[in-house]
Amino acid sequence: MTVRIGLVGTGTVGCGCLEVLQAHRGDFLRHFGVDVELARVCSRRPVQAEAFGLADIYTPDYRDIVNDPSIDIVIELIGGTTVAHDVVCDALRAGKHVVTANKALMATCGEEIMGLADEFGCEIAFEASVGGGIPIIGPLKHSLIANQIDSVMGIVNGTTNYMLTQMVNEGISYEEALAEAQEKGYAEADPTADVDGFDAAAKIAILASIAFNSRVTLDDVHAEGIRRITTTDLDAAHDMGYCVKLLAIAHRTDAGVDVRVHPTMIPASHQLAAVNGAFNAIYVTGDAVGETMFFGQGAGSGPTASAVMGDVLEVARHIQHSCGPIVGCTCTDNLPIVPMENLQTKYYIRFTVADRAGVLAAMATVFAQHNVSVHSVVQRGVKNSDEVYIVYVTHTACEKDIREVLSDIANLEDVLREEPNVIRVEDR
Amino acid sequence: MTVRIGLVGTGTVGCGCLEVLQAHRGDFLRHFGVDVELARVCSRRPVQAEAFGLADIYTPDYRDIVNDPSIDIVIELIGGTTVAHDVVCDALRAGKHVVTANKALMATCGEEIMGLADEFGCEIAFEASVGGGIPIIGPLKHSLIANQIDSVMGIVNGTTNYMLTQMVNEGISYEEALAEAQEKGYAEADPTADVDGFDAAAKIAILASIAFNSRVTLDDVHAEGIRRITTTDLDAAHDMGYCVKLLAIAHRTDAGVDVRVHPTMIPASHQLAAVNGAFNAIYVTGDAVGETMFFGQGAGSGPTASAVMGDVLEVARHIQHSCGPIVGCTCTDNLPIVPMENLQTKYYIRFTVADRAGVLAAMATVFAQHNVSVHSVVQRGVKNSDEVYIVYVTHTACEKDIREVLSDIANLEDVLREEPNVIRVEDR
Repeated sequence: MTVRIGLVGTGTVGCGCLEVLQAHRGDFLRHFGVDVELARVCSRRPVQAEAFGLADIYTPDYRDIVNDPSIDIVIELIGGTTVAHDVVCDALRAGKHVVTANKALMATCGEEIMGLADEFGCEIAFEASVGGGIPIIGPLKHSLIANQIDSVMGIVNGTTNYMLTQMVNEGISYEEALAEAQEKGYAEADPTADVDGFDAAAKIAILASIAFNSRVTLDDVHAEGIRRITTTDLDAAHDMGYCVKLLAIAHRTDAGVDVRVHPTMIPASHQLAAVNGAFNAIYVTGDAVGETMFFGQGAGSGPTASAVMGDVLEVARHIQHSCGPIVGCTCTDNLPIVPMENLQTKYYIRFTVADRAGVLAAMATVFAQHNVSVHSVVQRGVKNSDEVYIVYVTHTACEKDIREVLSDIANLEDVLREEPNVIRVEDR
Repeated sequence: MTVRIGLVGTGTVGCGCLEVLQAHRGDFLRHFGVDVELARVCSRRPVQAEAFGLADIYTPDYRDIVNDPSIDIVIELIGGTTVAHDVVCDALRAGKHVVTANKALMATCGEEIMGLADEFGCEIAFEASVGGGIPIIGPLKHSLIANQIDSVMGIVNGTTNYMLTQMVNEGISYEEALAEAQEKGYAEADPTADVDGFDAAAKIAILASIAFNSRVTLDDVHAEGIRRITTTDLDAAHDMGYCVKLLAIAHRTDAGVDVRVHPTMIPASHQLAAVNGAFNAIYVTGDAVGETMFFGQGAGSGPTASAVMGDVLEVARHIQHSCGPIVGCTCTDNLPIVPMENLQTKYYIRFTVADRAGVLAAMATVFAQHNVSVHSVVQRGVKNSDEVYIVYVTHTACEKDIREVLSDIANLEDVLREEPNVIRVEDR
């Protein structure tokens, strides 16, 4: 049988999809008995469609796709939450199945979109929205469903993982690593979404929703980025037997869903510590399966197209077998989000302080006043002739108390010279 | 809706499934709308069924399950290729869907079983047959189908990976590592299937069949085990920047499917090199997705039950949505198996030779005669007063030529004192 698809968006990923389709359409027919035919291509300009010899099916208006009754599946690859929102919602309302790579859209409007898909009897598939080519949504929605998933921890932003890897391997600064990442095309001119953790936050919202059967949206995720990480922090972590990664973390706890993105120290022996460069990996723990990890390229034309076209073929096979959507929204449980200030973990805190007598005693008093138990205090180099770096590592403490400690230390007279850098430790 | 299942086999994995079902039956109903009801339990003795309070649905005769028209899904967990074969085939002939963890059965009788499933319109699911709880068959049959898969390389036997890890970390011998693995329950009293690579061979046959859309059976897989690995080899590998793993390897080549199991040197920086202890991991390369890896526990009650019950729930959802089997046999291509003697790779060969003048020269002549180009020759320690270890590492050579080299060196007068140990190098 023939399944007709309409592609909206011919950027990097869209062109990757066109390449996959040109290379393997015959294979798909032979292996699965489904002929996937590209019916229409939409983008602002026709240049990419023309390059693929598709000028005759090009349109600049996505409505030519969602209103075409012969089209079964719409692929949305324009990104963002404005036009993309219209494309996805209009397509679903027109009874078309939708495949998207849009993490921002799914992390902010997931409930609306899943609801529309359900209402109109359509599938909405979004494997490519997290982890690029890494199969992770599929495993969570299918292979691992016999488990209660207890945690999902991921390196889901390749840009920052590349930068941190280069800072460790080459001993370069944050600024140098960012420039290198921009030069290689890993980071954009405005790197905010990557380096401040927003990209990772959208992804962990999606993963947590699926893993815990409970809606988590972008706004629920506490996000901190890597701007304040220095080689001093990375060296200190190394000496302690740890490795610093920007982790997207979601834990199921008795109090609800604990979900956050921040630079994190993990033991150097942890499987995630071996994930370097622009690679991504998602570490999933379930009550039956134990520990699992899914590793691969988290971005790029080919990997993302692999996920998009995998979804397209899966939906096409469902059409072929006259199945309705097999897996709709599974957010049946309404778990609360644990407030960040309730977090209990160990903390690494690097202070830049005045190099004078009495500073350590004053700081120690503040930690004691808030009942934060300190595991170690080490001076790690000097910033200049009268400023030094002091690294505190705490025993398990409460985020609320740590914030009060930081506030009180900031208020000490002539102690703090820079905003401290906090890295949470994850060694459960 | 209610889906009724019959469980055949209440060993470690069977009991794991009963635990999952007791813990999460209500969750499955709430999350997916499917009530999975255990209708019948079969095993040789009733003791496990009784322990789970299931005496009333116990039977010692599997035919009570396959002949029960109310049962939708049969879970086969007895293993082996005799009674298990009858259970699976009889269940399919009775129109029941089958979930199995049986690698030996699928690797030897896959074609027959897939054919029966197709003939009778049933699903046959076997995620648990490879990699325990690691989702790998699901990703290969679904998420990654837009790719041409170029290679699958796996650490798919936890016993031998545990032994090799202990030999490296603790500096113990093969015999000590085996004894320790047996003590911990990782290795059986007769460790043949694990240490000689047969277990891994069955698994790579299954993975290769799916990945390359072409039937590969157990007999097609060249299997060598780890019995001849010594700490001398592991130390040599370490010094060369490599790590030794028992890898199950399948490559798609222009000449066909290259499929084998043997101790393998991989670069220490390779993601598989970080997989230690009893963990498994499967490294998959596709033309669009690039490199991916799937990591987790390859055996044990919980992990294997996770895979089995994941399959059960998936089939149950298909029944719920009145879908026929969505993915049947996809071995549409009939690729030839590349003969092992055609293999082209680099070789590490440790010889135990007489410690006398002329030995190296004689050996070098043999390598030269067969046009095998040598990268390095190093003496690595002495076995005793008149025997030493000589380690050769070749440039890329042909297996056929290596075999002739080994044969000719064995025939040299007073040179070889032990069978050489060959480790192939995989650094593509």
